[in-house]
Amino acid sequence: MGMIGGGPGAFIGEVHRMAARLDGKIELVCGAFSSDPKKSIKFGKELFLNPSRVYDSYEQMINEEAKLGEGERMDFVSIVTPNHLHFEPSKLALNKGFHVVCDKPVTFTLAEAKQLKKISSRKKLIFAVTHNYTGYPMIKEAKSIVASNKLGRIRRAIVEYPQGWLSKRLEQTGQKQASWRTDPNKSGLAGCMGDIGTHAENLLEYLTGLKIKKLCADLNTFVKGRSLDDDGAVLLELENGAKAILMATQIAVGEENNLRIRVYGEKGSVDWSQENNNSLILRMEGRPKQILRTGTGELHKSTMLATRLPAGHPEGFIEAFANIYQNVALTIDSLNQNKKPKQTHLDFPTIDDGIRGMQFIQKVVASNLSKSKWTKF
Amino acid sequence: MGMIGGGPGAFIGEVHRMAARLDGKIELVCGAFSSDPKKSIKFGKELFLNPSRVYDSYEQMINEEAKLGEGERMDFVSIVTPNHLHFEPSKLALNKGFHVVCDKPVTFTLAEAKQLKKISSRKKLIFAVTHNYTGYPMIKEAKSIVASNKLGRIRRAIVEYPQGWLSKRLEQTGQKQASWRTDPNKSGLAGCMGDIGTHAENLLEYLTGLKIKKLCADLNTFVKGRSLDDDGAVLLELENGAKAILMATQIAVGEENNLRIRVYGEKGSVDWSQENNNSLILRMEGRPKQILRTGTGELHKSTMLATRLPAGHPEGFIEAFANIYQNVALTIDSLNQNKKPKQTHLDFPTIDDGIRGMQFIQKVVASNLSKSKWTKF
Amino acid sequence: MGMIGGGPGAFIGEVHRMAARLDGKIELVCGAFSSDPKKSIKFGKELFLNPSRVYDSYEQMINEEAKLGEGERMDFVSIVTPNHLHFEPSKLALNKGFHVVCDKPVTFTLAEAKQLKKISSRKKLIFAVTHNYTGYPMIKEAKSIVASNKLGRIRRAIVEYPQGWLSKRLEQTGQKQASWRTDPNKSGLAGCMGDIGTHAENLLEYLTGLKIKKLCADLNTFVKGRSLDDDGAVLLELENGAKAILMATQIAVGEENNLRIRVYGEKGSVDWSQENNNSLILRMEGRPKQILRTGTGELHKSTMLATRLPAGHPEGFIEAFANIYQNVALTIDSLNQNKKPKQTHLDFPTIDDGIRGMQFIQKVVASNLSKSKWTKF
Amino acid sequence: MGMIGGGPGAFIGEVHRMAARLDGKIELVCGAFSSDPKKSIKFGKELFLNPSRVYDSYEQMINEEAKLGEGERMDFVSIVTPNHLHFEPSKLALNKGFHVVCDKPVTFTLAEAKQLKKISSRKKLIFAVTHNYTGYPMIKEAKSIVASNKLGRIRRAIVEYPQGWLSKRLEQTGQKQASWRTDPNKSGLAGCMGDIGTHAENLLEYLTGLKIKKLCADLNTFVKGRSLDDDGAVLLELENGAKAILMATQIAVGEENNLRIRVYGEKGSVDWSQENNNSLILRMEGRPKQILRTGTGELHKSTMLATRLPAGHPEGFIEAFANIYQNVALTIDSLNQNKKPKQTHLDFPTIDDGIRGMQFIQKVVASNLSKSKWTKF
Repeated sequence: MGMIGGGPGAFIGEVHRMAARLDGKIELVCGAFSSDPKKSIKFGKELFLNPSRVYDSYEQMINEEAKLGEGERMDFVSIVTPNHLHFEPSKLALNKGFHVVCDKPVTFTLAEAKQLKKISSRKKLIFAVTHNYTGYPMIKEAKSIVASNKLGRIRRAIVEYPQGWLSKRLEQTGQKQASWRTDPNKSGLAGCMGDIGTHAENLLEYLTGLKIKKLCADLNTFVKGRSLDDDGAVLLELENGAKAILMATQIAVGEENNLRIRVYGEKGSVDWSQENNNSLILRMEGRPKQILRTGTGELHKSTMLATRLPAGHPEGFIEAFANIYQNVALTIDSLNQNKKPKQTHLDFPTIDDGIRGMQFIQKVVASNLSKSKWTKF
Repeated sequence: MGMIGGGPGAFIGEVHRMAARLDGKIELVCGAFSSDPKKSIKFGKELFLNPSRVYDSYEQMINEEAKLGEGERMDFVSIVTPNHLHFEPSKLALNKGFHVVCDKPVTFTLAEAKQLKKISSRKKLIFAVTHNYTGYPMIKEAKSIVASNKLGRIRRAIVEYPQGWLSKRLEQTGQKQASWRTDPNKSGLAGCMGDIGTHAENLLEYLTGLKIKKLCADLNTFVKGRSLDDDGAVLLELENGAKAILMATQIAVGEENNLRIRVYGEKGSVDWSQENNNSLILRMEGRPKQILRTGTGELHKSTMLATRLPAGHPEGFIEAFANIYQNVALTIDSLNQNKKPKQTHLDFPTIDDGIRGMQFIQKVVASNLSKSKWTKF
Repeated sequence: MGMIGGGPGAFIGEVHRMAARLDGKIELVCGAFSSDPKKSIKFGKELFLNPSRVYDSYEQMINEEAKLGEGERMDFVSIVTPNHLHFEPSKLALNKGFHVVCDKPVTFTLAEAKQLKKISSRKKLIFAVTHNYTGYPMIKEAKSIVASNKLGRIRRAIVEYPQGWLSKRLEQTGQKQASWRTDPNKSGLAGCMGDIGTHAENLLEYLTGLKIKKLCADLNTFVKGRSLDDDGAVLLELENGAKAILMATQIAVGEENNLRIRVYGEKGSVDWSQENNNSLILRMEGRPKQILRTGTGELHKSTMLATRLPAGHPEGFIEAFANIYQNVALTIDSLNQNKKPKQTHLDFPTIDDGIRGMQFIQKVVASNLSKSKWTKF
Repeated sequence: MGMIGGGPGAFIGEVHRMAARLDGKIELVCGAFSSDPKKSIKFGKELFLNPSRVYDSYEQMINEEAKLGEGERMDFVSIVTPNHLHFEPSKLALNKGFHVVCDKPVTFTLAEAKQLKKISSRKKLIFAVTHNYTGYPMIKEAKSIVASNKLGRIRRAIVEYPQGWLSKRLEQTGQKQASWRTDPNKSGLAGCMGDIGTHAENLLEYLTGLKIKKLCADLNTFVKGRSLDDDGAVLLELENGAKAILMATQIAVGEENNLRIRVYGEKGSVDWSQENNNSLILRMEGRPKQILRTGTGELHKSTMLATRLPAGHPEGFIEAFANIYQNVALTIDSLNQNKKPKQTHLDFPTIDDGIRGMQFIQKVVASNLSKSKWTKF
């Protein structure tokens, strides 16, 4: 794997590296970590990389790696730059024949995302997008429970993603994470809804297996002087007529990263929260609440594949993230061997999820400006 | 106290009686418990009432009691019938000079509620409405924290009231509670939103001290054959520009009576849930989450007055309900002695809250039918 | 009911009164609330008692009430004085033919407790002891689960009762509760072990249905200058060979009243904590953890009888306490009617539990002084 | 790093590898994974190891690696075999100049452990023992809080480690983990107390900074036919006079791996549970309970160094384990550069902890057999 972005001070770059490392199936072999070549070289050294494979720019990296022999060159590129710098490296990598793992939201505009879909399809290359929350084992369990129709027809869902870190104008302190996320030139049409709202949207559609059909959004910018939304609530209708609420906010003082999803069907419901990520609450009508736990028996195959440890040994964010990388690696491995990838290995978010995310951003922004209640998705 | 309604099989009648009894300040002295006089008499006997004061009808009770001497006749009436039977007894009781405690929603129509307000004002009589959740000590604590501006300007609130008991068509089994609540002729314009949505609305306005300014409602009837809403989600704007989400549902399988409210201000937030009613989570920016607990030091005066036991001795629903009754009793006691009631004793929901509730029902129903996003409140 | 003790400033007296009032089956008709007759009279007035039945002393009360006619005189006495003042009024009340409800530990010495047993047996009078924690519905559920052998043979139990309120020398501030509890002349042989250790012991034997066979105690007095134990840990063997740990402490800073019991059998386990008193955790081997909840279906009859509200309406300490009073009242009512009391109504702690408690105090104190590991019970 | 043991089917071997990999500072370069050379070779291939460095036996590995040049040969050995196979490879590795990371309990007998201490001291080599629970960030926070005297003098501690996986005779099914752990020839003097009791003991001494002075143990073998203890409770006195309870059990049906420690001082207390490993409950006298969280501000330096992610991104067991490996790697790196290791990097368990663990096993077994209450430690 080669990495673009993720140099010193970046948060998500190191997460990608830890996730890639964890299972011993992926080796970071090259990188272009910073727009400043000196920083990139220094950083590559810290990562014990061969200096000849630490590049000045992503163009150089992709072009040079493409010249290396099979088995020697990187197998795929991991792109962990801010949103506005996803498209160009992704496009070049695909065009040079490299699979891509890209952070979310996948691009700056919807049109770009669609273009990446076209290229990756034509080139038959993997394009994974790290909507990492779908990597949690108990999310997979919840998805399988819904898919099995155990809960009956889904009626009501609530997905919420409250954070508090942008409750003040942190971007003015020079904090890197805050700066680009609140800058329309780097983040895109939306702030909070792009950054975490898309995670919530992706989780909702992944878990329920239902697409959003229409929505009604109310976005807010509570912190004065900020250009993009830092809070929002959305009413949604899903394709089977189910209704959902999606809330994403970054001004909820005291909240850390409190993603939670609840889904109620005719016969039962599930409730999952990142703060208790190794548990899934299952409630069947007329029966006591059950707490399903990772590492215990009788869970779905996909859940068990996404779990490394016996019950009671907590796994977390990095492990869930690593589940995305692991499946990507196993899929690429199959492709490299001209084998058909296993269905279970294909369980990772792709450019299609990326496109849904970009559409979601577009639609919530449009709905927010509209006086009509419902905006079709 | 005399009681109208609340005969055998009723749920809320016995709650009112336990709440009234708990603190030893209120005695049930008479009642008209059922539309069937025989049932009423039998029930009065079970309650150890003087048979001469167990009446055949509410009219008889109010008229007969009015003839009794001061100190002998009941001090106030408690009305615990279904919604459509609140108005007439309330009106008669007020006109005959009795204070009233009435269950919620206060009437069948908004116009009726306004009429009761007029009469009670003219007669200078107490008209309490049992929006009982404001009786919880930690709700009072949260209110006092918000009022003190400790959290700064309020930005975002979420109030949710999920129940699961109407996820099937329980009304067809003859279950009394379900039958009238799902019947438009007894419940009023709304089902779920009237029954528990108004509690959520009341709690939101009580705790934040902010009135709802506009709203956008999406109501649903998920159970086939049912006439009224059994689920709904509402986006709201409060008078200071804060935004809120209100969810009330009775089809959320597995949920019991899971009322929860979260309020986020510029500097901190509070989080309260009925399932942990003796705790209040307080989070101030940059500081560890704190769990405030009933019965411990440094709480607001109103919180302490609403708590009977030292820390760690759980109080619950009946005690919170009793706090309403206790304040009503103390206020009536002051009035009986021609004293000005204490401010702390006036902390109970009144006809004004009842009117807000009726307006809320009207507005969410209108908004639900509207294609416009926002409906003014 | 008549009350002895429980005057102004007392904590437990008002708890007994609220518990007695809650269900409308018991009326407080007389009392001797304080050793100071003036205080007693004033207090009786606040309780709306007939002044002629507010007495100067317990002797006067018992003697005078005994002279009143059947149906007029009190049915039973509730004794809520400090430990050293339990025996004499109990004895007199029994001898005059009154049933007794007495707070715990039942007496100052074991010999006194045995004497009360003898008298009450001879007189065929009820002698209830308010080991109130057995009144919690989910404790009854746990007991019924164990009794049904669903968990298989019990192997390991842990009962813990940590409080923090005596972590400093509170008794020197004049705090009434602390003063007598830490005074060997009022409290008896033990401090913490008598006050709350006996509750833990009672709960353990009640829930498991197993008697303690031997024990190994380590008692401590951590606060300098205090005479009695304020902390202790005990290893126990139960009659079937199961092992248990009992911890009771009053110096655990930050703990409120955190009684918890866990019982592990061959096939499953139960876990109950007062802080979540409406839930019972049930874990069967190889199955997901289940959360049983009061007010939901499929619970044991005794659990349901001890619950007043539907699921999700939290009940607490007073309600559990009231369950004791309610069963006592129903039993006395049967006896008054010369009927055999129902088995379910006899589910309250009696002088036998009181004697076990006194023996427990004696044994843990002896064991603490012994160099041998095990002391037979 | 080279690994001894941890072949296919082993649980802890892969944990060590993931922990070593996570931070990108340690590379697995060689191994002797199984007593069966064929299995070892096959397994090495799966791990992408150079086949020339996958060895038939630990002797071969240590001897061959010792012949390789500095910078080429492994830096240290990781020993993840069952208990009875710790000593010989450890001794050989040390004698050949390699640092050692060894699983716990460190040896089969106390004498062996002392011998390893002697050799490693003489050779000035690192000998780390993976008492991994001390790697949790909030354990480090708790330790630093205690060390700062914020809680005042420690009075009472409770450490408990309940598991349920050995509640039946799992060892008879051929389950590898169960087989050697219940076999006195592989596990040593104790079963449960050796396997997880030593973790509890280590955590208690680490967190409080206090050594055990005397103890009173009650060990049990509840599953018929088993040779070693599968459950035990221990009363302890710590060197400052504080008292503690240690419970370790493997027959607690329904428990997963529920390590928890509570420490009460004169002025405050801390409470940590592996099931909520990213939180630490801090309660100061008279103040609301606080929930300290990883990744938030104002934590101790050692806590922050042991945390990889911002608040709300859960870390778990592997990350805590990796904190041990990371500190070992950083210390070895300093030594390799002839630098003095930083104090913060030396924060990992060593042969001294291993010896304490072996002594603990010896003492609890002796105490269990003794009729005297206290056994000196």
